[in-house]
Amino acid sequence: MYSIGLDFGTNSVRSVLLDLEKGIETAEAVCGYPSGLDGIILDDKNPHLARQNPYDYHISLERAVHAALKKATKDKKFTPEKVIGIGIDTTGSTPMPVDKKLIPLSFYPQFRNNKNAMAYLWKDHASADEAEEITELARKIRPEYLANIGGTYSSEWFFSKLLHMARTDKKVFNASASFIEHCDYMPAILSGKKSPAEAVRSVCAAGHKAMYSAERGGLPDEKFLCTLDSSFKGIRNKLYDKAYPAGHTAGFLCGEWAKKLGLPEGIPVSVGAFDAHMGAVGAGIQPGVLVKIIGTSTCDMTVSPKGKKLRNVPGICGSVPDSIIPGFIGMEAGQSAVGDIFYWFIRKFLPAGAGNLHQKYALLASKMKPGQSGLLALDWQNGNRNVLVDPKLTGLILGFTLNTKPEEVYRALIEATGFGARVIIERMEEYGVEIREIVATGGIPDKNPLLMQIYSDITGRAIKIAASGQTCAVGAAVFGAMAAGKEKGGFKDAAEARKKICRFKKVVYKPDKKSKKTYDRIYRLYKDVHDVFGVSNINKNLYDVMKELLRIKSGKS
Amino acid sequence: MYSIGLDFGTNSVRSVLLDLEKGIETAEAVCGYPSGLDGIILDDKNPHLARQNPYDYHISLERAVHAALKKATKDKKFTPEKVIGIGIDTTGSTPMPVDKKLIPLSFYPQFRNNKNAMAYLWKDHASADEAEEITELARKIRPEYLANIGGTYSSEWFFSKLLHMARTDKKVFNASASFIEHCDYMPAILSGKKSPAEAVRSVCAAGHKAMYSAERGGLPDEKFLCTLDSSFKGIRNKLYDKAYPAGHTAGFLCGEWAKKLGLPEGIPVSVGAFDAHMGAVGAGIQPGVLVKIIGTSTCDMTVSPKGKKLRNVPGICGSVPDSIIPGFIGMEAGQSAVGDIFYWFIRKFLPAGAGNLHQKYALLASKMKPGQSGLLALDWQNGNRNVLVDPKLTGLILGFTLNTKPEEVYRALIEATGFGARVIIERMEEYGVEIREIVATGGIPDKNPLLMQIYSDITGRAIKIAASGQTCAVGAAVFGAMAAGKEKGGFKDAAEARKKICRFKKVVYKPDKKSKKTYDRIYRLYKDVHDVFGVSNINKNLYDVMKELLRIKSGKS
Repeated sequence: MYSIGLDFGTNSVRSVLLDLEKGIETAEAVCGYPSGLDGIILDDKNPHLARQNPYDYHISLERAVHAALKKATKDKKFTPEKVIGIGIDTTGSTPMPVDKKLIPLSFYPQFRNNKNAMAYLWKDHASADEAEEITELARKIRPEYLANIGGTYSSEWFFSKLLHMARTDKKVFNASASFIEHCDYMPAILSGKKSPAEAVRSVCAAGHKAMYSAERGGLPDEKFLCTLDSSFKGIRNKLYDKAYPAGHTAGFLCGEWAKKLGLPEGIPVSVGAFDAHMGAVGAGIQPGVLVKIIGTSTCDMTVSPKGKKLRNVPGICGSVPDSIIPGFIGMEAGQSAVGDIFYWFIRKFLPAGAGNLHQKYALLASKMKPGQSGLLALDWQNGNRNVLVDPKLTGLILGFTLNTKPEEVYRALIEATGFGARVIIERMEEYGVEIREIVATGGIPDKNPLLMQIYSDITGRAIKIAASGQTCAVGAAVFGAMAAGKEKGGFKDAAEARKKICRFKKVVYKPDKKSKKTYDRIYRLYKDVHDVFGVSNINKNLYDVMKELLRIKSGKS
Repeated sequence: MYSIGLDFGTNSVRSVLLDLEKGIETAEAVCGYPSGLDGIILDDKNPHLARQNPYDYHISLERAVHAALKKATKDKKFTPEKVIGIGIDTTGSTPMPVDKKLIPLSFYPQFRNNKNAMAYLWKDHASADEAEEITELARKIRPEYLANIGGTYSSEWFFSKLLHMARTDKKVFNASASFIEHCDYMPAILSGKKSPAEAVRSVCAAGHKAMYSAERGGLPDEKFLCTLDSSFKGIRNKLYDKAYPAGHTAGFLCGEWAKKLGLPEGIPVSVGAFDAHMGAVGAGIQPGVLVKIIGTSTCDMTVSPKGKKLRNVPGICGSVPDSIIPGFIGMEAGQSAVGDIFYWFIRKFLPAGAGNLHQKYALLASKMKPGQSGLLALDWQNGNRNVLVDPKLTGLILGFTLNTKPEEVYRALIEATGFGARVIIERMEEYGVEIREIVATGGIPDKNPLLMQIYSDITGRAIKIAASGQTCAVGAAVFGAMAAGKEKGGFKDAAEARKKICRFKKVVYKPDKKSKKTYDRIYRLYKDVHDVFGVSNINKNLYDVMKELLRIKSGKS
């Protein structure tokens, strides 16, 4: 039997067919989104805006599934009838406005070219002011709303984007019957849902990004929302009261889409979740294990048994029951730039030369010892997601002498992201979350052994690398198989799936004692600099430096 | 009539013939030092060591004077008999050990290849530990020794170097009959002095670098020196009791050197001084005017009338009576790296390309507005000379985003040196020194109009550029003419000389109101970051960051 996993990324959708007996991928295929710049619709006037055309999701989905099925049929054992479930992950929070029939407003002729009617991609930061407003109001009248999502509401999240829409495009906002996360929209349309109310919403998206809590009775209350903006009146009725974990069945593949995709009608479609969360499952998340998806940015995830007495962890993206695996509290944190930082440095600041510059500088940097450069950097080139939750922080490098070389800076930037990773781990531990071991996945772990060793030395933990290069799509397929259930040939639960699918590469990075000792010394310095620029109550002047520079840059007085 | 000015720089000696009627240079010539790397003798095992071979001074002096005289004779008006005086400046503190006949120890066969017997070039930092020792002892038992030299004794200075010699090479130290600054050695040998006691010492070198004070009775007392190290016993007798200002006659050109150089025997040779000090005179220093020599590093000089009640200015290199112009208190400060920082950045961090990279990036940077980059840098790539007097500080850049471009960093580095310049000016003003206007000279003002405008905007002051490209050698010639005296066709004093020789380029940089306002805002941020990393009592942890990184780098625990 097989399950199909669909991973809707920032630029493309990936489809994976998971062989449920063997626990390995039989076939996979990728299809880029046709609109915008690599699937992202930008705005010349607003550098913070990043939208997607929902129509891309439909087209690319079909193509990616067809391509994967075509590849799979090379294996004579495979037939499409053996697919027993579908799981879907997407980026998030990526909400879009829909009409009462669950049709995206951007499908209407009058909204076709209106960016405000499209999907608001996770990295759309146009709603920074609205996020601050929400944080401020919640701190004042509903502190409990922020308690389990790190204490600060982000511009990347659901209600910031809705509020921004309500403020900047009344027409679109008023024409909307509901607003739906990309990860909820896909299962709903595949299972033929005909209204927003029928769509089953994900607790992952709801709990981490929309202040949802089953205990508190769902989403933020009407009074809170209307205090934010009177146009939010009645919005609770347009949204949902209950959200469900992935693995729960969102619906069954409808005839129309079964035909389009060439898959059996009526197979269960799992409730969706965010890519990183399903990726964590694909990488073998369990209590004590931190899964790090390391790419242009990172996402750090772990789970804790529900019974365990945990305090809310300030400064992480959230601790939400059932958000990663049903039955566990799912925890998510991350760094807003990692690979992006190295790419920026290599592209802009290195003497051009032949060959792969990443490899060249990684090689030069790998010959240096910890501390040898005398440099220290803060990894805030794209702000700080955790634990400071502050997009208005910027990168810093210090320790320059007239002998400082580019490869030293390159290494210092890697180290900075490693120290940033350690800050998150220490914060989790401080609040009772155990992290024994790290499993890495994403674009970087395979390509940059230097970074992996540095991370191991800095965090003092062994790091394994997930064998699959497609942990997100594999994780999605696992949830498809959980929705199908044990009797149909699927999985009983995540633990069973983990035993079947989890494989690691041979190489395991282990901390070197001497390097760790040096990095312990440098980490203390990193933490001092981190805190003085990032925490408000240590030195008010220093805390204000990066923010004031951004104000000056933007022309504000 | 003519005066000859000799400017012994770091890599070469320059000779200038000054026409005393017209006040302009008739001829000039440069001769590089033959030894070492561009005249500097380095040590593979000790990156802080920088020495010079005193023999180079003899050879290059002859060549440079011959070449200048040869050029001058193209002017039919000129004959060598019309040269009425010689003035000399050198780098400093650049002391060397000599025997009882004033012969450098390095001339002896047994010391010929011994770097410790050579001249200890100003930028030799091998004696950092000794400088700390001297500072510590003086703070404890003789605070008055540091009061007028900024509060901290530097590794670049006379007694740090002597103490280092005593500790690291007893043979050389014990074989020395005296130790003499390069700027005192040159006038002494030209005037045929046959013993260290006959050599007339410069109050500029003595007062700024050797804790000399006429009021206090000369050099530091024997007890202080012997507490530093018992091998200093009797050293006061080897040195000198009184030092003299430039313009005072050190001696008269002896027959041997008159013949070697082709100049009239018996013409007066002025007491020497440091290059920057004579350069300041060549650039027209007077009360209210700050002369900035801007090159790889900067030197900032001004003078105050002696009668004016001035407090000692902490953190500047010194306020020494008569050190720049007789009758005035000479003040010297500086930045340990300026041009060096841009050169470092351009050489190491810019994508190679055709043409002059300085010009290319200066052009790109000139298109940006103040504050537009969002960057802020500290100009400490070579430590901080003033006002922090701390070689263990390092460079910092903050404000990086994923869009930061090299030309933005290039501009931020220029701005950082401008802010560093402003810190010095504000410190001087705070202690009652008036700075109305800036006169710039050195290698950079002509080449980098962007930097000049930025400096004017940041300091809020008009900046003129000295017309002569050889202000140091011209200043030296002025003192040669002052030694010769008014009756012989020389100058009565510096004021008279200034009227005759001071010319400025047409371009004058004036602060732009709007830019100044923005830079005022950014300067406040610079000062906050400057203080938190550079001043010990604001945040002990942050103050320790750069120093601890250097300790880790050096392998110290």
